[in-house]
Amino acid sequence: MEILVLKDKDLREAVTIKDVIEADKEALKEYSAGNSDIPLRTVIDVDKENSSTAIFMPGYIKDKNALGLKIIDIYPQNIEKGLPSSPSTMILIDDENGFVKAILDGTMLTRLRTGAVAGAATEVLSNEDADKFLLIGTGGQAQTQLEAVLAVRDIKKAYVYDMNFERAKEFAKKMNEELSEYDSEIIAVEDTNEVIEEVDIITTVTTSKNPVFDGTRVKKGVHVNGVGSYTPDMQETPSEFIERADKIFTDTKEGVLEESGDVLIPIEAKKLSEDKVSHELGNLLLGKETGRVSKDEITWFKTVGFAGLDIIVAEKIYRLAKEKGIGQIINM
Amino acid sequence: MEILVLKDKDLREAVTIKDVIEADKEALKEYSAGNSDIPLRTVIDVDKENSSTAIFMPGYIKDKNALGLKIIDIYPQNIEKGLPSSPSTMILIDDENGFVKAILDGTMLTRLRTGAVAGAATEVLSNEDADKFLLIGTGGQAQTQLEAVLAVRDIKKAYVYDMNFERAKEFAKKMNEELSEYDSEIIAVEDTNEVIEEVDIITTVTTSKNPVFDGTRVKKGVHVNGVGSYTPDMQETPSEFIERADKIFTDTKEGVLEESGDVLIPIEAKKLSEDKVSHELGNLLLGKETGRVSKDEITWFKTVGFAGLDIIVAEKIYRLAKEKGIGQIINM
Repeated sequence: MEILVLKDKDLREAVTIKDVIEADKEALKEYSAGNSDIPLRTVIDVDKENSSTAIFMPGYIKDKNALGLKIIDIYPQNIEKGLPSSPSTMILIDDENGFVKAILDGTMLTRLRTGAVAGAATEVLSNEDADKFLLIGTGGQAQTQLEAVLAVRDIKKAYVYDMNFERAKEFAKKMNEELSEYDSEIIAVEDTNEVIEEVDIITTVTTSKNPVFDGTRVKKGVHVNGVGSYTPDMQETPSEFIERADKIFTDTKEGVLEESGDVLIPIEAKKLSEDKVSHELGNLLLGKETGRVSKDEITWFKTVGFAGLDIIVAEKIYRLAKEKGIGQIINM
Repeated sequence: MEILVLKDKDLREAVTIKDVIEADKEALKEYSAGNSDIPLRTVIDVDKENSSTAIFMPGYIKDKNALGLKIIDIYPQNIEKGLPSSPSTMILIDDENGFVKAILDGTMLTRLRTGAVAGAATEVLSNEDADKFLLIGTGGQAQTQLEAVLAVRDIKKAYVYDMNFERAKEFAKKMNEELSEYDSEIIAVEDTNEVIEEVDIITTVTTSKNPVFDGTRVKKGVHVNGVGSYTPDMQETPSEFIERADKIFTDTKEGVLEESGDVLIPIEAKKLSEDKVSHELGNLLLGKETGRVSKDEITWFKTVGFAGLDIIVAEKIYRLAKEKGIGQIINM
């Protein structure tokens, strides 16, 4: 049987961020409608001393014929070796006959599906005339986060902030080149307070344990995407902001309530009720929830990711790559 | 990073059955010593109507630096399409950095490790001068079962039986050609009773729900490997034989007591005590159990397989293939 091998650049060539946003929307809807079979992931501690861990995330979404497994291995000590700290590989299985049909670079897949899920939320929740964006965090996930917002809103100014200003400047320079098609000015800022009162959309994508912007100063009508804070001890979103939010949506209520310090810490401090984080974006897309109803509402989308995003996006990438003749075919 | 792709023929080229027997022994010892991290496998029902199922079996054996996942998909309806009914793929991960390092044909891997585990038991438990062998079942697993016994004992006559005599004859013809190096005569028999009283070793590898030989007629000193009966409703080994057995060893006590009708049915009928099936071959190899003590003892080895066999054998195949320059390298 044939296996299609897709490297990071093949993924980028096969799909646009808009394609991925559409696939993510499908994944959100399938999840919230209860049509996804996503078993508990399996975690193996490879080396407790170095915190290296192997994580296996299988799943099946029948309606999309999307069956597969993402492997993510967390290897903090890889950094010292000049290697990515969380190598990842996606395996797709043909649900018609059970054969492995594709192997995809999991790191790029994760970047695309994670950027795109915030893009989907921004498209649905932010004000349509939003034109100023602030991206906080310029690490590995930042480019697709920026790109996804530029793809869904006509952003004039995209501010980028990082604890390390030099890094923010480099990132802005690189993005002005790589994302020139969007006609947005990408500007590094040294302090988020310079722009916090004017931006319409904010995306936080950090591993911070302390809030990364002043939640009391954001303007009315702002939409925020919370992408970092994927462990209970990470908190990048100020609880003052969460208290002000009129509408909160999650990718999966279950995942967010289990993993994200952004909600767990304020819930523990009785500043947030579980009820307020019980609304899923998938249900909004299905018409079962009410989204923004006025220009002044403040909205927050919190995502920790789930295997359905990986599998449905990977299946779409696979199909488009096959159509376009992208990737390397190996015969097993 | 590089991924080494190994097809079925590459596996055969990389290792001898003796290599695999040695690797299986290591896996048995690591398992019984409690050194294997084998999480529960994950099962996804892909299509209940057609009984198609995807099974994910990850595991890690630290001492052997062996980390990986076998995917087996059970697709009974593949037969009608002329495809194998249980396509399988093995993924190996480098435990030093978390990157996927190899993809192996899982079907050949399973055949090799399953044949070899019975080979290991035969080497340890059968009489050293055993020279007559009876193989019952000539399906996909049969060749490596035959080969493994020929590799550990100087077999003069290997009788092969199948419900379908034509199939047995074809198999014998093919094996006489392919296994000519062993100087054994491979002979198809129409009825196991023709030879049941003279054989020193028997391997049963069927999916039968009814005993496949006469347990009252086997001779003293016989060693039997039970390889089929991997579900609670399969029973290929007569309980009369099991009652006569002086020593019983399993690959894993837990697996056998959970999955095999060969033991569950007689236990249910109070013809067998759980105690009698509590001895693992790994512990015998570790010197913690007593094996055969006389020429007349009747021994039975029951295997249902476990992920440790796959992972340790795959790691060995990977290493030898790399040394010998076998397989296709892809760059991710």
